[in-house]
Amino acid sequence: MSDIEQYMTDVGRQARTAARAMSRANTAAKDGALNAIAYAIEAQQAALLEANSKDMEAGKAGGLDAALLDRLELNEARIAAMAEGLRQIVALPDPVGEINDMSYRPSGIQVGKMRVPLGVVGIIYESRPNVTADAAGLALKSGNAAILRGGSEALHSNQAIARCVHAGLEQAGLPAEAVQVIETADRAAVGRLITMPEYVDVIIPRGGKGLIERISAEARVPVIKHLHGVCHVYIDDEADLEKAIQIAFNAKTHRYGVCNAMETLLVAEGIAEQVLPELSGMYLEKGVELRGCETTCRLVPAAEPASEEDWDTEYLAPILSIRVVKDVDEAIDHIAAHSSNHTESIVTENYTKARRFLREVDSSSVMVNASTRFADGFEYGLGAEIGISTDKFHVRGPVGLEGLTSQKYVVLGEGQIRQ
Amino acid sequence: MSDIEQYMTDVGRQARTAARAMSRANTAAKDGALNAIAYAIEAQQAALLEANSKDMEAGKAGGLDAALLDRLELNEARIAAMAEGLRQIVALPDPVGEINDMSYRPSGIQVGKMRVPLGVVGIIYESRPNVTADAAGLALKSGNAAILRGGSEALHSNQAIARCVHAGLEQAGLPAEAVQVIETADRAAVGRLITMPEYVDVIIPRGGKGLIERISAEARVPVIKHLHGVCHVYIDDEADLEKAIQIAFNAKTHRYGVCNAMETLLVAEGIAEQVLPELSGMYLEKGVELRGCETTCRLVPAAEPASEEDWDTEYLAPILSIRVVKDVDEAIDHIAAHSSNHTESIVTENYTKARRFLREVDSSSVMVNASTRFADGFEYGLGAEIGISTDKFHVRGPVGLEGLTSQKYVVLGEGQIRQ
Repeated sequence: MSDIEQYMTDVGRQARTAARAMSRANTAAKDGALNAIAYAIEAQQAALLEANSKDMEAGKAGGLDAALLDRLELNEARIAAMAEGLRQIVALPDPVGEINDMSYRPSGIQVGKMRVPLGVVGIIYESRPNVTADAAGLALKSGNAAILRGGSEALHSNQAIARCVHAGLEQAGLPAEAVQVIETADRAAVGRLITMPEYVDVIIPRGGKGLIERISAEARVPVIKHLHGVCHVYIDDEADLEKAIQIAFNAKTHRYGVCNAMETLLVAEGIAEQVLPELSGMYLEKGVELRGCETTCRLVPAAEPASEEDWDTEYLAPILSIRVVKDVDEAIDHIAAHSSNHTESIVTENYTKARRFLREVDSSSVMVNASTRFADGFEYGLGAEIGISTDKFHVRGPVGLEGLTSQKYVVLGEGQIRQ
Repeated sequence: MSDIEQYMTDVGRQARTAARAMSRANTAAKDGALNAIAYAIEAQQAALLEANSKDMEAGKAGGLDAALLDRLELNEARIAAMAEGLRQIVALPDPVGEINDMSYRPSGIQVGKMRVPLGVVGIIYESRPNVTADAAGLALKSGNAAILRGGSEALHSNQAIARCVHAGLEQAGLPAEAVQVIETADRAAVGRLITMPEYVDVIIPRGGKGLIERISAEARVPVIKHLHGVCHVYIDDEADLEKAIQIAFNAKTHRYGVCNAMETLLVAEGIAEQVLPELSGMYLEKGVELRGCETTCRLVPAAEPASEEDWDTEYLAPILSIRVVKDVDEAIDHIAAHSSNHTESIVTENYTKARRFLREVDSSSVMVNASTRFADGFEYGLGAEIGISTDKFHVRGPVGLEGLTSQKYVVLGEGQIRQ
C-alpha cells in the first residue's frame, strides 16, 4: 500500500469511528457545532482571506482562467454567506431519528420507519471553497461523517475553513474527525476514496460531466450522480401566451451557466406563429443565439438550422435550440429521446395535458407553468443542497439533508413471537 | 459481441421500451394483468406440473440434494400459493403517481414529490420457481419492466410460468416484454445483464452470500444487496423474564434456515443466572447446539466454548452462540462489531434503554420486545417482498413495492419565474 493509500485508509477508519459518534449526537450538539463553525468562520475572516490569497496567486501564476479564478475567490461577502448558510442549516429540522408511518399489524407488533444517517459521505468537488463549509454543514446536521476532497487549486482556502470546522466540532464536544479535509493534491487520494466501501458509504462528486463519469466508472461505492441538464420548456397550444413568454425567457436567460437553465424550447405548431416571433426578438435582443428546426427557421429568419447534435447539447451558454412540435405527445417523445432527465416544464392551461406531462415525463423535476430555474434546493425548501441527482436510485433532484439519510424499520412489541 | 451478449442486449432494449409503457399504465390495467396471470397459473396447472417434472427429473439425475429439490418442486399447493400471492399484490395500493408533501414556497410555486417506477429491474435468483411469479407481480404493480434470470435447474418451470405471465399481460393490453425470462442457462447472460446500465436500472440478486458478493463486485448497475443475517437478541437485566424466554426461544427455533433467525443471544450479567439455565434447557431439548462465552459455559455446562469466529457466523442451523455482557452498552458495542446490520431485538421493560437501543443500533430492523422472526415483508404489511436489503442506500430491510420506486419532484405554478 502506497503512502497515499495508507493515508486515505487512516482517514477512512477515523471517519467510520466518528460516524458512529455523529449518528448518536443529539440535535443540540450538532446545532451547537454548526453555530460555532459559523462564528469561527466570521472570526477567522482575516486568516481565510490570507489563505485564499495564496491560492489566488498560485492560480494566476498557473494560468487559471477568469471564470475559475472567480469561483476560487473568497471575499468578505462570500465569507459572510458561508456563515449564513450554516445558520440556515441550524434552522432546518433534524432529520435523524424522525419516525414515520407507525402502524399496528395483525400480529400486535407496531411497525414504522426511523430516519438514520448514511454513515460516511465522501464529497469530491472543484474550485469553490465555500463547498467545504456547505458540505460539512449538511453532513453534520444529517448525522454523517464527511471526507471532503476539494480542488487542489483551493487547498489553502479549504484547510483554513477546515480549521474553523474542527474548532466548532471540538467546542460542541463532537469528534474533529467527523469532517476531514484531504490534505494532499495527489490524485491517487481520490482513487482510494472511491474504492473503500468498508469506510465510505456514498460518494458525491460535484463538477463537470467528465469528472462524474470517471468517478462513477471507477467507484466501488454508491455514487450520487449529477450529470448534466438538457432542460426543456414545452409551450402548449393552450398556453397562456404571457406566462409562456415570461417562463421561456426566464428559463433561458436568468443565468446561462447553470444546470437548470433551459437548453431546448419546444413549441406546439398551433401557437408557434403567435409565440416565436415575439419571443425570438427578446432572445436576440439579449444576445442569445438561436438554432431551430425547419419551421422555426421559417418563422424566425435570424435562427440558424439546428443539427441533430443540438437536441442533446447542454450549452451552458446564450444559445438555444427551438423545435416546433405537433402536440404534447410529440413534446413528451422529444423529451424522452433527448432530455437528461433533469428538469422539464410545460406551459398550458389545459388540465389533462398538465396532468399527463407530470405523470409521463421521467425527469427529476417536472413542472407546470413555472420556470425550470426553480429546480434548486433552496427554492424547494430543502435548505442548502449538496447537489442535484439525475439518478433515480436513492434520491432524485436537489439533494438536501434527507438525501444524506436512509430509513430503518423499528418494531415495538410486548413479547410477540412468530406463530 | 457474442451471441449471448447480443441476445441480452436485445432483451435489455425491449425491456427499456416496455418500461416506458409500464410507467404510464394505469392501475386498472396493471391489476387486470395480475389477475389474468393468477388465473392463467391456475388454469395451466397441468402444464406447470409437467414442466416442473422435467426439471425435477433432470435435477435428480444431476444429483441435486434434497433441500434443493424441495425448493425446486411445484405442487398443487404451491401453484395455488403463487396465484394467491399475485392476488395479494392486486389488493395493495398502487404506489406509482402517489404525491406527497405538496407545499407552497415563498415564490408561489407548489412543490411536492411523485412516486415513479425505477424502470427496468433485473432479478437473479436460484431454484425456487415461485420467485418468477412473485417478482413479476411486484415489478408490474410498481410500474417497472423486469428481466428475470432464474436458476438453470428451474428453466422449464420458469418458462412455463413466463407463458402465463405473457398471456396475462397481453390480455390486459400491456406489452409482453414487460416481463422477460432469460431462456438460456449460459452464465455469460448474467455477466451482460449486470453491466448494461443503459437498459437496466437496478439488479436484485436473491441467493447465497457468495452469489451476491460476486454480482456486487462485477455490476455496473446499482445492486440491492441481501447479504446475510447475523441477528441478535439482547436480554436486558430489566427484561420481563417470561417475554425474554419466549422471544429468545422463538427467534432461534421457529425456523433455522432463514436470515431473520437469531444467531447470537446476548444476556445482561445481572439476569444471566435467572435466564440461561431455563432457556438453555429448552434449546437443548429442541436439539440446539450451544456455544458460549466463559460465563455462559459456567452457567450452562452443556455449552461448548465459542470461538471468536462464532460471533460473526450466520449458522442457518440449530446452533446458537451466547454471550453474557455487562449491560446495554456492551450489548450495543457487540452488535456494532459483529452484526450484519440485518435485525436486532432488545428485551427490556426499561423505557430509556429501549429508546437508546432503537436509536443507536444500526440495523435494517431494530426491535423492542419482539422476535427477530418478524423482519419480513408480509409481517410488516408490505405484501410480498422481493428481498431484504442489508444496504443503507436507497432501501433498507424488507423490499416491497415502494423499494422498486423512486420519487421525482413536481412543481405547480401559475407563471412563476425566478427573480
